Amino acid sequence: MKLLRGLFDGRIIWAEVEGERALVRSAMAGERTGEELPLSGIRPLAPAEPTKIVCVGRNYLDHIKEMGNLVGGDLPKEPGIFLKGPNALAASDEVVAYPDWTESFHFEGELAMVIGTRAQHLIPENALSHVAGYTCGLDLTARDKQKSDLQWFRAKAADRFCPLGPVLETELDPGDLRVQTRVNGETRQDGRTSMMIFDPVSILTYITRFVTLEVGDVVLTGTPEGVGPLSRGDRVEVEVEGIGTLVTLIG
Amino acid sequence: MKLLRGLFDGRIIWAEVEGERALVRSAMAGERTGEELPLSGIRPLAPAEPTKIVCVGRNYLDHIKEMGNLVGGDLPKEPGIFLKGPNALAASDEVVAYPDWTESFHFEGELAMVIGTRAQHLIPENALSHVAGYTCGLDLTARDKQKSDLQWFRAKAADRFCPLGPVLETELDPGDLRVQTRVNGETRQDGRTSMMIFDPVSILTYITRFVTLEVGDVVLTGTPEGVGPLSRGDRVEVEVEGIGTLVTLIG
Repeated sequence: MKLLRGLFDGRIIWAEVEGERALVRSAMAGERTGEELPLSGIRPLAPAEPTKIVCVGRNYLDHIKEMGNLVGGDLPKEPGIFLKGPNALAASDEVVAYPDWTESFHFEGELAMVIGTRAQHLIPENALSHVAGYTCGLDLTARDKQKSDLQWFRAKAADRFCPLGPVLETELDPGDLRVQTRVNGETRQDGRTSMMIFDPVSILTYITRFVTLEVGDVVLTGTPEGVGPLSRGDRVEVEVEGIGTLVTLIG
Repeated sequence: MKLLRGLFDGRIIWAEVEGERALVRSAMAGERTGEELPLSGIRPLAPAEPTKIVCVGRNYLDHIKEMGNLVGGDLPKEPGIFLKGPNALAASDEVVAYPDWTESFHFEGELAMVIGTRAQHLIPENALSHVAGYTCGLDLTARDKQKSDLQWFRAKAADRFCPLGPVLETELDPGDLRVQTRVNGETRQDGRTSMMIFDPVSILTYITRFVTLEVGDVVLTGTPEGVGPLSRGDRVEVEVEGIGTLVTLIG
């Protein structure tokens, strides 16, 4: 089932998508209220209300190689995790301004997971049952600042550096999905989630050893090879198989 | 004025502290409700409800030196910022368990600021007017993982790694306050906020160039020299002049 979060007539709603109709729910995991709206009248919002966004860096071998980060030929022994705050959220079809403080603003398309039930010390057998659904994520990155700064704060966590959407797919096996990023129609990234070094289950069990994930929290799973710089006016599409296409316009 | 956030009879309240009485408010920056409670009956909570906790690393010269991080003798040109999520909050008098995954669990006492009004692109003239108040912060750090991990995620942002309290002081000049940390009664850190490389105004103007600070967000300002390892059973006190003493028990 596909869920959307959006703005209708000034109200923020969650709804089930059924053809051209939206069946309103009381919350992400709430009951139907009985209200039906035309899908076309709803402006999309990021389909998550996180207290934090937890991201995996360097999770695809070919991306590690393209960035020159395969030190000594060894794969990472543990996931490399970093944080964004809720300020980083943006919706599908939204314009994200090219920041005036970076010379190297990169796209990184990825699979995102949204947490459905509070998660601590997950084990492989129950990890995915804590996921409410899956969506497309764009991990926008100021590559120059990522290299020069002490930590990946402004490089990764600046306002609107995490577009998500367009919908949350609640029934999906995340194990082997195609993840594509297109810039102005041209395919730039084309990987599969089966190529992750740490799969979604491993990511969730690792994170929740240290950090409690709350309902609505977002987990970004890393990007395949093919990342590159953006320019003002670019149209970025992140498409994850079985979910849909997240569109971000660079202003 | 000192504000506290706490639990009374199962309710979470904000209140003004007046002697032994707590004058209940409707919110951090709300009006008095007229209700008065005995201070002794309130269990303290961290005096902030953040969407994110934004922290400065390496902000005191002597601390940079003690960590061996004065590369080439140059001071940082810009603040080194990192994030914790709301999961890191802990209250004064709370027990924080020594994590079973670190061999080097360090204390870092600091001045913390809590945001009172939404802040974007602050300028020096208005920066401090966006601060609701000041409190004591303990930036708990898994020093071994800080050195070995890709980013400072579990090293800094694990559950309860950010005790705050005991109260929010709303009328304070943060420019030259004594910051002390004691472990089991012995003074281990004793600095002054005037020794910061980036002062509170510079920190706020820097952060808000990239990231919007929301009401309730917390900004930690960095730690003076003297950091060191903790053991199970330790009692850590962070005292900031004009605010009070934050007590953390290591379990």
